[in-house]
Amino acid sequence: MPTTRLETFSDGVLAIAATLLILDVHAEGSPLGHALTEIWPRYVAYALSFTVIGIIWVNHHTIVGLLSRCDRRFLFVNLFFLMVVAFIPFPTELVASHIRDGGADARDAVLAYGFTCTLMAVSFNLMWFYAIGRGELLKADADPKLVKGITRGFIPGVPIYLAATLLALVNAAVSLALFGALALFYVFMGSVLVRDESPV
Amino acid sequence: MPTTRLETFSDGVLAIAATLLILDVHAEGSPLGHALTEIWPRYVAYALSFTVIGIIWVNHHTIVGLLSRCDRRFLFVNLFFLMVVAFIPFPTELVASHIRDGGADARDAVLAYGFTCTLMAVSFNLMWFYAIGRGELLKADADPKLVKGITRGFIPGVPIYLAATLLALVNAAVSLALFGALALFYVFMGSVLVRDESPV
Amino acid sequence: MPTTRLETFSDGVLAIAATLLILDVHAEGSPLGHALTEIWPRYVAYALSFTVIGIIWVNHHTIVGLLSRCDRRFLFVNLFFLMVVAFIPFPTELVASHIRDGGADARDAVLAYGFTCTLMAVSFNLMWFYAIGRGELLKADADPKLVKGITRGFIPGVPIYLAATLLALVNAAVSLALFGALALFYVFMGSVLVRDESPV
Amino acid sequence: MPTTRLETFSDGVLAIAATLLILDVHAEGSPLGHALTEIWPRYVAYALSFTVIGIIWVNHHTIVGLLSRCDRRFLFVNLFFLMVVAFIPFPTELVASHIRDGGADARDAVLAYGFTCTLMAVSFNLMWFYAIGRGELLKADADPKLVKGITRGFIPGVPIYLAATLLALVNAAVSLALFGALALFYVFMGSVLVRDESPV
Repeated sequence: MPTTRLETFSDGVLAIAATLLILDVHAEGSPLGHALTEIWPRYVAYALSFTVIGIIWVNHHTIVGLLSRCDRRFLFVNLFFLMVVAFIPFPTELVASHIRDGGADARDAVLAYGFTCTLMAVSFNLMWFYAIGRGELLKADADPKLVKGITRGFIPGVPIYLAATLLALVNAAVSLALFGALALFYVFMGSVLVRDESPV
Repeated sequence: MPTTRLETFSDGVLAIAATLLILDVHAEGSPLGHALTEIWPRYVAYALSFTVIGIIWVNHHTIVGLLSRCDRRFLFVNLFFLMVVAFIPFPTELVASHIRDGGADARDAVLAYGFTCTLMAVSFNLMWFYAIGRGELLKADADPKLVKGITRGFIPGVPIYLAATLLALVNAAVSLALFGALALFYVFMGSVLVRDESPV
Repeated sequence: MPTTRLETFSDGVLAIAATLLILDVHAEGSPLGHALTEIWPRYVAYALSFTVIGIIWVNHHTIVGLLSRCDRRFLFVNLFFLMVVAFIPFPTELVASHIRDGGADARDAVLAYGFTCTLMAVSFNLMWFYAIGRGELLKADADPKLVKGITRGFIPGVPIYLAATLLALVNAAVSLALFGALALFYVFMGSVLVRDESPV
Repeated sequence: MPTTRLETFSDGVLAIAATLLILDVHAEGSPLGHALTEIWPRYVAYALSFTVIGIIWVNHHTIVGLLSRCDRRFLFVNLFFLMVVAFIPFPTELVASHIRDGGADARDAVLAYGFTCTLMAVSFNLMWFYAIGRGELLKADADPKLVKGITRGFIPGVPIYLAATLLALVNAAVSLALFGALALFYVFMGSVLVRDESPV
């Protein structure tokens, strides 16, 4: 089974999930200038989740590009992964609404955000390890160095995201900042790290 | 007429219908931690309908992959099918809002959900039987065993969904649980059942 | 310039416009069973506009399939057309909300719906006549009979839609029913009419 | 890395951002006829932003069509660009809601709109100069005249958009009208200007 429609459908879900985020950016109250600065957590949450979904898309792109084909089970693991990603707008809105409340509500919003990201990392690992475990899904000419590099890069994702999530029990704002730092690190350093090893 | 744009458009509608489901997951009230657990039916409804639409997508994928071409009528039968699938977010929201009410409202919400799923199964059968009835839509080299397997698998869909729906007249929660069990059965057993017969 | 991305983008806009229609189907009030029957105009409006957009998609599909390439101007005419189609959910909601009010509000809702459909037909004609006027956009081997058949079929679209719209000044419900009848006629008869002339 | 999925994902985000604009066109109040004329700024804002996103799509289309491949960094620059475009529905709604208020609120709404457009132009330039700076992203046979023409056309975009934005400090309505005029100029004149130099 070729991967063409898997890609179309996944690109669709990822594109929609990212674009729907804007529906939770709205400014009410008067004067407008004041309202527009008051809602800064909404801008931050929008930029963070758009970047997170964008990173997911780049990684999905990389993985599926290494496959020569997919099977029924891979479709369902991919669907589970998409179900988690499409969930992201919900905790994003929670964080945007509650991060300034401080206290238990900010903590619970960031916990919801973090657990969603952690589950996303889990499902991403499931997808990757199913693809390389079955083995036959990989292209015959997939660069073994790149495959190893991806495996090395994905494994720490789950514990790191989980740790960042649990940090919210201590300090919600620091936990959220860590999610932002991880995303920025990935965008700027990710490409540096792999540069000398692979063409991706 | 090739099936390319049929696939793009269908993937688009299915991806959007699945991703829009998150718009009905929202938590209000204070404290947030309490609100987040209170809304568990919204998580269940989201996961159920995302899975149902995902299964539909996998099946659509399988069917269209067997066609060598499509015609004008097939486009319209496919549109009717998409119209039913794109309707799913509405009864999903009803179920999420009313399943805990019990009584007549829970029953009517699950009936609406069930009839939508049943109609979806009907339109899916229409599409399949039109494709194999005309015959010419199938690829010349379509595996006859696989074609028969799909026919055998799709026919019981309508009466099973209808029975699960009518069960809501007796018990809404059991009816809904049955829809969940059917989806999980399909995801996990569907691949076991076809494994030794076909490459799908 | 090939037509590939034109098709992806157009399919995206058409698929989203159709799928967003469900956001305007919602049932409030108690008991739910009563509310679900009360909102029948929302079901009708959903089905009508989904069908209208579906027909538009089939026609767009047919037209673009006849082109060998597109140019910058065609892209912008196509964008204008998409802007009108993406507008359809708005008058659809107006019709769903007001058709039962009768009087001036029902009339104005149907007028808004009808003018949007008429403008859509105008932009569709613009697109087609630009494509065949420049001539070079058509495939060299485009069946001249089919091209003539499409021209014959599209020209009456504008006056018919305009007449159906203006009928709302006399009777809003009859005008709306006429839009429904036109859509059904097109779905069922359209394929009969072209059958003996062309493979579409 | 080929540009196929970059195009699918970008087309998805652009199509969704444009189509979501309709969610902010709604008419309430009675009589409906009055409400429908009262909300004219919503129609204007819809048409303006749909056109702006459409122009962006045409330009994105042109640029990516000149690339032979893309790399990881280009994906992230493209994501930043998409994040800005997907933001457009928010200031569009602000403009639609406040342009008639006059005073500080109208000014701030148009400033928000203008800064978003300016940032979009900045990110578009980033994308283009990264593509031609690295050089290797361009197709070997990309017409050097066309490449120069694009560069000449994109550079003034940022200062022009910034000037139009700052004009809102003096007069919000004139600033907004200038954005409309720029869009119309681009649609109608853009094709005239490049006609004798390139096939785009």
